[in-house]
Amino acid sequence: MKCDLTKDDQVLDMFARIKQDLGGVDVCINNAGMSVVKSLLEGTPEDWRKILDLNVVALCLCTREAVASMKERGVDGHIIHINSINGHCIPPQPVSHFYTGTKHMVTALTEALRQELRQANSNIKISAISPGLVETEFLMRAGRTPEAARQMYQEMPSLQADDVTDSLIHALSAPPHVQVHDIIVRPAKSVN
Amino acid sequence: MKCDLTKDDQVLDMFARIKQDLGGVDVCINNAGMSVVKSLLEGTPEDWRKILDLNVVALCLCTREAVASMKERGVDGHIIHINSINGHCIPPQPVSHFYTGTKHMVTALTEALRQELRQANSNIKISAISPGLVETEFLMRAGRTPEAARQMYQEMPSLQADDVTDSLIHALSAPPHVQVHDIIVRPAKSVN
Amino acid sequence: MKCDLTKDDQVLDMFARIKQDLGGVDVCINNAGMSVVKSLLEGTPEDWRKILDLNVVALCLCTREAVASMKERGVDGHIIHINSINGHCIPPQPVSHFYTGTKHMVTALTEALRQELRQANSNIKISAISPGLVETEFLMRAGRTPEAARQMYQEMPSLQADDVTDSLIHALSAPPHVQVHDIIVRPAKSVN
Amino acid sequence: MKCDLTKDDQVLDMFARIKQDLGGVDVCINNAGMSVVKSLLEGTPEDWRKILDLNVVALCLCTREAVASMKERGVDGHIIHINSINGHCIPPQPVSHFYTGTKHMVTALTEALRQELRQANSNIKISAISPGLVETEFLMRAGRTPEAARQMYQEMPSLQADDVTDSLIHALSAPPHVQVHDIIVRPAKSVN
Repeated sequence: MKCDLTKDDQVLDMFARIKQDLGGVDVCINNAGMSVVKSLLEGTPEDWRKILDLNVVALCLCTREAVASMKERGVDGHIIHINSINGHCIPPQPVSHFYTGTKHMVTALTEALRQELRQANSNIKISAISPGLVETEFLMRAGRTPEAARQMYQEMPSLQADDVTDSLIHALSAPPHVQVHDIIVRPAKSVN
Repeated sequence: MKCDLTKDDQVLDMFARIKQDLGGVDVCINNAGMSVVKSLLEGTPEDWRKILDLNVVALCLCTREAVASMKERGVDGHIIHINSINGHCIPPQPVSHFYTGTKHMVTALTEALRQELRQANSNIKISAISPGLVETEFLMRAGRTPEAARQMYQEMPSLQADDVTDSLIHALSAPPHVQVHDIIVRPAKSVN
Repeated sequence: MKCDLTKDDQVLDMFARIKQDLGGVDVCINNAGMSVVKSLLEGTPEDWRKILDLNVVALCLCTREAVASMKERGVDGHIIHINSINGHCIPPQPVSHFYTGTKHMVTALTEALRQELRQANSNIKISAISPGLVETEFLMRAGRTPEAARQMYQEMPSLQADDVTDSLIHALSAPPHVQVHDIIVRPAKSVN
Repeated sequence: MKCDLTKDDQVLDMFARIKQDLGGVDVCINNAGMSVVKSLLEGTPEDWRKILDLNVVALCLCTREAVASMKERGVDGHIIHINSINGHCIPPQPVSHFYTGTKHMVTALTEALRQELRQANSNIKISAISPGLVETEFLMRAGRTPEAARQMYQEMPSLQADDVTDSLIHALSAPPHVQVHDIIVRPAKSVN
């Protein structure tokens, strides 16, 4: 099922089809995120809205729909935000600073949702995984050429997607009384 | 001069007219901010985009244009983000949680712009003021009735606009070698 | 082997005996920590020094000795600080505030040691585990009666020691290129 | 009046003499702080205890005594912790890392005392000032030679003591309903 997460209609359609085909959502992993390789003083409102639409609005909408699906069926499900190490520090790379800002917002939204679920006496869990650089198509999509992206991943210490999955499984497999709040994980050789 | 800060064209027009009429911008105070009284699980993408457009996109656009105006004329100007105490903590009020997220983003953007200006060897300053609740039209605009807003300001300890101005003046009047990074200020009786 | 970790001589003796009997230290888990049930305005310098001696000084000394042992033998070992959720937030319980302060210091020391190891081009890893309340003898040792401690653990959501071990194993079993920086984990029903 | 702040007896004597000679304490500015120029892996328990005794224990003891003096006389006084920019970030200088840890603890203790005073319904204020490098005898006392210290202050952007005083006065002169929580202030050219 393909879905442009920045189109609200497509997101709502996706959740409707999941309900029809599968009954509903038990686990929602908000993994999508993007950046644009421009400093704050070079960026444009178009860039910024595109990044916010994916990193913040889609994350909030998918979360809202997933929680609604869980509540509807009385499922104690699990929301997982794939955040970033940049949600916890501000590496001195201006071209990633706007992205870093959105991830600080995700850090706040993680704790905020936890508070809201606890106040509603819900058993639904919320966790974040905050990895350092992961070797994916991320840098290319942010505007690097394939060659530049390949070279950066060779030169900079990076994680593999499987490493993030390992932490995801750790959070997901915790017993009911345990809520992993955040797993911050870096390439071992990472400077920032 | 009136300007809807969430309309990029109007913002660019405003800066063009400032240039024409006044020569340019020396000090830019990003004061506008809004919230919508809904929890994360009640909010809508429309609400979220409206809040992000003002609290984040307009702040970034005005900052970019103001810095460009300063550089153009060789002025060592000053950008001031009016952030919020909610940029530094997450009060347990779900109806303000999305707003809180945007303000955490502003906290990160403040340090991010500082880094970018330092790396460019610029003398332009960036400061934030992070006040607790200020008695303004904020709560009414966020969706409270005038009566509810009035009552909340009576019941909750709050600052006056002049208190924020006092801190603003402290930041603005610092000598050239001193950069106030952030002034966090609360109503003395505030719990959060 | 018994060791009062607040006595430097005993700590150094312990490491000497480990070297003699086992060759050295490959993994060092700084687990010991204590509190005294008094607010900041009720505490005494004696209380504070006792808490600092265990939560900060012993942690730093054991870390220093363990890293020295690893370097001596060319072992890419692992230091793990058992921090606390109170290293990341400040729950509104004055009787735990001094303890909370020491844990904020441990959060800073975790990142600080990471930076120092990276600058030395070392492969030794440093991780933290930051759990919420764990059912142990902690509350009793902090000055609660056995009855009060038992009741608090019944009334307040808490983790079991095994839950912390699970996160510890996740951090320890990461492949060489992956460094878990911090796992923040709470009782699922915890308010703070 | 001379007082070695790391000797509890001398601190208690000082407050006794203030009471006798002046009636009591209305404003307490916890300004003393020290570092030792050694990385975490080079430091000694003696260094660490000396730093903790001044930066944490003396600060807590003076605060406790000052608040007691204010309460005794029904004075709505003011405690001010002179913290550091290193209470809010972790600059990549291993020789200052232990100091940085103590200042993160002061950041936590500032908010902690605020909570304790609010819960006690007290009007006593607590503020922090968190400056970057200030040109004082600090570096020399931390173990630098006078020449090295002088050179460092010439090469590194730094604040003057008067700049800190300016922020102090801003915090102290706020009206009763306003509590400055923290003023973070850097040399304008500072990188960290």
